[in-house]
Amino acid sequence: MLTMTPIGTVRNEVKTPIVKGWGKVASDYAEALDGLEDFSHALVIFWMDQAGPPKSLKDHVQGRQELPVAGLFARRAPSRPNPIGVSAVPILSREKNVLRVQALDAIDGTPVMDIKPYTPAFDKVDNARVPEWCKRVHEIEDYL
Amino acid sequence: MLTMTPIGTVRNEVKTPIVKGWGKVASDYAEALDGLEDFSHALVIFWMDQAGPPKSLKDHVQGRQELPVAGLFARRAPSRPNPIGVSAVPILSREKNVLRVQALDAIDGTPVMDIKPYTPAFDKVDNARVPEWCKRVHEIEDYL
Repeated sequence: MLTMTPIGTVRNEVKTPIVKGWGKVASDYAEALDGLEDFSHALVIFWMDQAGPPKSLKDHVQGRQELPVAGLFARRAPSRPNPIGVSAVPILSREKNVLRVQALDAIDGTPVMDIKPYTPAFDKVDNARVPEWCKRVHEIEDYL
Repeated sequence: MLTMTPIGTVRNEVKTPIVKGWGKVASDYAEALDGLEDFSHALVIFWMDQAGPPKSLKDHVQGRQELPVAGLFARRAPSRPNPIGVSAVPILSREKNVLRVQALDAIDGTPVMDIKPYTPAFDKVDNARVPEWCKRVHEIEDYL
């Protein structure tokens, strides 16, 4: 077992686990954010404490019978052995200990574990291949 | 404080914290990997337990005087309040509970917290802006 102390908290108007729009991260480490505003995007790593434990290791994508069965490490569902979320989000502004970002898919009060600068050399994969179901999901709706 | 149980372990030949080449992840949840082989890349989320605590919230990039000072959330250095690593890596193969990947920047024995399919709709940011020092670092050497 490993223990972590959150470095901050998500603050937004979103109280249920479907999120659109902006959010902000209030960090306990103001100075550690210095220079992040020189990047256009951040990776926010958070702990989805409201997600609940996974029901099974393998399930239909989004629990929908018409979509294939896949293991939970082949899906992005929030219920996982360790409910870690990773979001690449545009940085809107940073003031002291508050980072304001767009489209953070985390609800109000979510503990934040880490923030990293989005660095294309590490984080951007060109021509990544995804299975056919993944494209279908994106066509049907915004997929969280 | 939050507690986590690793879902697997990095296995490779790398015993010091500078990593090139391939690695594999042996997961305790074989079935949860089903379908991940249909993706070309994975995000591996790991806990850099050898990194040691950060010396300060703000420091020269890579500890080098000729590079600017930046907060630790504006850098990718492994010493962080929560030493979480996120790597986007090509999937080479998957057999039962073993995922073989390329260029995983984690040493042998590193605990793995989560694995996600690399999904361009979430993970790929086109035209992300980085500060000038970040480009210089990449020119000097491979930047971990």
